[in-house]
Amino acid sequence: MRTDYCGNINASYIGQEVTLTGWVNRRRDLGGVIFLDLRDRQGIVQVVYDPDLAEVFEQANKVRNEFCVQIQGLVRPRPEGQVNREMSTGEIEILGKGLTVLNKAAPLPLDFNQENSEEQRLKYRYLDLRRPLMTQRLMFRAKVTGAVRRYLENEGFLDIETPILTKATPEGARDYLVPSRTHKGEFFALPQSPQLFKQLLMMSGMDRYYQIVKCFRDEDLRADRQPEFTQIDIETSFLDADGVMAITEGMIRSLFKELLHVELGDFPRMTYAEAMQRFGSDKPDLRNPLELVDVADLVKNVEFKVFSGPANDSKGRVTVIKVPGGASLSRKQLDDYGNFVGIYGAKGLAWLKVNDKAAGLDGLQSPILKFLGEEVASALLERTGAQSGDILLFGADNKTVVTEALGALRLKLGEDLGLLQGDWRPLWVVDFPMFEEADGQLHALHHPFTSPRDLSAEQLAADPQNAVSNAYDMVLNGVELGGGSVRIHDQAMQAEVFRILGISDEEAQLKFGFLLEALRYGAPPHAGLAFGLDRMVMLMTGATSIRDVMAFPKTTTAACPLTDAPSPANPDALRELAIQTVKPAE
Amino acid sequence: MRTDYCGNINASYIGQEVTLTGWVNRRRDLGGVIFLDLRDRQGIVQVVYDPDLAEVFEQANKVRNEFCVQIQGLVRPRPEGQVNREMSTGEIEILGKGLTVLNKAAPLPLDFNQENSEEQRLKYRYLDLRRPLMTQRLMFRAKVTGAVRRYLENEGFLDIETPILTKATPEGARDYLVPSRTHKGEFFALPQSPQLFKQLLMMSGMDRYYQIVKCFRDEDLRADRQPEFTQIDIETSFLDADGVMAITEGMIRSLFKELLHVELGDFPRMTYAEAMQRFGSDKPDLRNPLELVDVADLVKNVEFKVFSGPANDSKGRVTVIKVPGGASLSRKQLDDYGNFVGIYGAKGLAWLKVNDKAAGLDGLQSPILKFLGEEVASALLERTGAQSGDILLFGADNKTVVTEALGALRLKLGEDLGLLQGDWRPLWVVDFPMFEEADGQLHALHHPFTSPRDLSAEQLAADPQNAVSNAYDMVLNGVELGGGSVRIHDQAMQAEVFRILGISDEEAQLKFGFLLEALRYGAPPHAGLAFGLDRMVMLMTGATSIRDVMAFPKTTTAACPLTDAPSPANPDALRELAIQTVKPAE
Repeated sequence: MRTDYCGNINASYIGQEVTLTGWVNRRRDLGGVIFLDLRDRQGIVQVVYDPDLAEVFEQANKVRNEFCVQIQGLVRPRPEGQVNREMSTGEIEILGKGLTVLNKAAPLPLDFNQENSEEQRLKYRYLDLRRPLMTQRLMFRAKVTGAVRRYLENEGFLDIETPILTKATPEGARDYLVPSRTHKGEFFALPQSPQLFKQLLMMSGMDRYYQIVKCFRDEDLRADRQPEFTQIDIETSFLDADGVMAITEGMIRSLFKELLHVELGDFPRMTYAEAMQRFGSDKPDLRNPLELVDVADLVKNVEFKVFSGPANDSKGRVTVIKVPGGASLSRKQLDDYGNFVGIYGAKGLAWLKVNDKAAGLDGLQSPILKFLGEEVASALLERTGAQSGDILLFGADNKTVVTEALGALRLKLGEDLGLLQGDWRPLWVVDFPMFEEADGQLHALHHPFTSPRDLSAEQLAADPQNAVSNAYDMVLNGVELGGGSVRIHDQAMQAEVFRILGISDEEAQLKFGFLLEALRYGAPPHAGLAFGLDRMVMLMTGATSIRDVMAFPKTTTAACPLTDAPSPANPDALRELAIQTVKPAE
Repeated sequence: MRTDYCGNINASYIGQEVTLTGWVNRRRDLGGVIFLDLRDRQGIVQVVYDPDLAEVFEQANKVRNEFCVQIQGLVRPRPEGQVNREMSTGEIEILGKGLTVLNKAAPLPLDFNQENSEEQRLKYRYLDLRRPLMTQRLMFRAKVTGAVRRYLENEGFLDIETPILTKATPEGARDYLVPSRTHKGEFFALPQSPQLFKQLLMMSGMDRYYQIVKCFRDEDLRADRQPEFTQIDIETSFLDADGVMAITEGMIRSLFKELLHVELGDFPRMTYAEAMQRFGSDKPDLRNPLELVDVADLVKNVEFKVFSGPANDSKGRVTVIKVPGGASLSRKQLDDYGNFVGIYGAKGLAWLKVNDKAAGLDGLQSPILKFLGEEVASALLERTGAQSGDILLFGADNKTVVTEALGALRLKLGEDLGLLQGDWRPLWVVDFPMFEEADGQLHALHHPFTSPRDLSAEQLAADPQNAVSNAYDMVLNGVELGGGSVRIHDQAMQAEVFRILGISDEEAQLKFGFLLEALRYGAPPHAGLAFGLDRMVMLMTGATSIRDVMAFPKTTTAACPLTDAPSPANPDALRELAIQTVKPAE
């Protein structure tokens, strides 16, 4: 029905007759000549209808925005002065010689020229996706998955599908459940990840597995969460952490080069401990030059208990962010930042402005200056390298509160003050602790199948608190692109980790019996990683929500305004499944 | 941890030191020398351990089948007489110089040298998949999906993901339901296909969509059905049936050429009517030379009511299969075939043997010969081209019974008698009826979004029974590889089809309101097709069940013996979902 895409027509077509199909992006009547901007997924081209061709002109006169049409015409240069260098088709226009309306369009319920509510956009998603920005994002996403597949298949990875109807998985979030009709009273769970299946595939000798796969979590949704999301899931045998990191780093590097023409270079590596200390985050945004500088040793003896308390407590932390030029922050701004760190449990935000460094104490300004004294103040300036015009912002509390609060404050300052440097700053974060403690129980920081680093099962059992895991996260611009680990392939080690996590032998058998069994038959050393595809595409396209890079996302209450899902079920269907709905307790 | 795959080592490596990892496929002690067959996914290589190297020999002596090991050694030619041309590694062996046990293996619960029960194979799937045949099938499947993606992406198709948590779809099978926690009392359905979403993507201007996607049907399982299966799902805008058929035929052709080195040539097309008449099936296996030859006109006036009844009834059918050489079929065999057609409702199987064509009536043998008489008998021989030694098998009843019964008999005869000719016989079946009648109501033969061929909504309404749809099925060796259609893009036509199907306006609004709404805004002409990936890979690998080309299939009662899914749910989880299980009525 067409000879080419609208968006492909350029000066090289001049003098050719073309047939195009698409949607009327805009129709204008200028001085008795009708201009149609015809749109398809590749772009927009201008078609001109002259009154000389009376019949076709009449046709063109009747079409309206978003009519689906087929046009014939002659490609010619645009008249002098009408060339638009911004558009790939901007040097030419098409003299329309034919026009067939393929389908009419009622006036749209969405106005493309203004912001529409999320609810409206999702209800009329098929129209929202016609917007070139949205079309391009989905096209870009398809390019990403294509490039990822090519890269991994070149590296010998096999695309293998794992089940969607499966058993509850141990990722810790809530599962979506699916009642079984043939085994009444029992349920499948939708996978939170194919973790155990990909490990089993390694035990079956598949050697290198990948899958671009839907995963499911029934969580209360935040802006960047969806009930179903997509992972680039990878697992290899006979490779250590460095091997997996090299392959996956290469994948991301080639993706950025191929699709964004960006050379990412080698990714630096940073330990978890360093990331938390310098950036207050296990996914530091390295575009942000601000750092947390620890000063507990300098304030151990000051009279100010807010500082000296944590400074003398092994579980406390006293740290400073130096903001270059921050001395100009207003009282109001500082109060707002004080409230901001309050969200993270900080009781306030002490500050010290360096108005004139040369003037000594007189050049400093701070409500707590009197508690610090000249010696401490000058040590602080020296430690942080503060210059005239800078401000120091303090965090002093227990380690967790200070790290979280000042880590968040660092990000906010970077954004508010426009401090970000560079476009793309990837890194690896490594050497995570195996476990974190909460409510008197150790929990896996990654998941219970993560191997410790350089420890036997006995050594791990002896001192689990200080065990470092063989896990690695890839971070880009403060976003965790993906994470993975070397897995446990030794049955005794796996059983020990379950014990440390407080999982009884009985529970381990019930939930993971098949894994423990599988580990008895020559499981190979294996390791892997999973990337969040939605986030990756969001970052690469500059979108601000993963919803904007998914074709049919759900709302924040996990509903689909387009199809009206979820919806009440047919009572016969529920009877067959042997379940019934109950009125929830208020 | 290795320098190459085991299966890759060949004569070109002679003289090289290699490091390999894999599983001990077999360990033999022959004359004081230990032979290990080392296996990875690429193949098996022989490693020889000499007692000269005492320490390593001792190590090798201790390994057992399925231990996971790393070996070092020198590639050398096999001694004269030990070369195995069947194996890619059969010209060489490796003189073992090192051996590290990476993981021990307990004796396997599966014996690779015998048939294991389906239940055992699925329970220990990770071991079953180590069998080279199974490994190769999964590797082949990955090659198929890779080749499909490359082909479609070259043709401009975009890989776009559609939701798994969605609304009940109209394919007619039972849906899997997923209770919503945030909208208590309501349910998502898992998609039986992305049909409506892919149509919506066309309305959003995506132009060419594909997805290799999981679909779900909660049906009672037969040998070739699974609760979750995989479709190669395709949709295009601005292409007619011929256009879609050309692209998808090209895809299958290139797949067979690339992966099996088979040239399929152009696919013939056959109407549904011809397929049913000549082969008694809408998915004829053209490798089978037997055909149904209609003879109602010849037997209208015979005394034998079993023939003359249907022959004079417009809803009846009398047809014959001529089996070359079939006169040698025994009475017992003919009785068995009589019972076989009984499954399809046929009341018996009349037959006529041509023992000696030259001898006239005397050369024929049949219990019904006396009813036919010489003239009819000789007309039947002429019509069917029967020769001495052949047999004619008759079907006479209403059209449906005869067509189904003799269609099935044809397949069974072809298999029993080894009549199949040629390896690969693809074709297109086209011109299906729009509707079929059952219980006094018209039902869609494909689905309610299929466009009629060359009819307006008014014309369709006037005579729906005789409407032909714009649908097409791709059939290979008697298996439906895929099917599709031109879709309805006109709202009035879609509403009319719903009416013909007895769907009330209210029900149409409730179920398909969003589709009808979407058709108001310039929906483009569009068409598509979906292939069953599992079946395609099954055919191409010569497997006999789709379970053998899936990594983790379910049993025929839709359970997973490996993970023990489905399983009872946590009561707290059910409470949160506001559902409870009920004891099913006996």
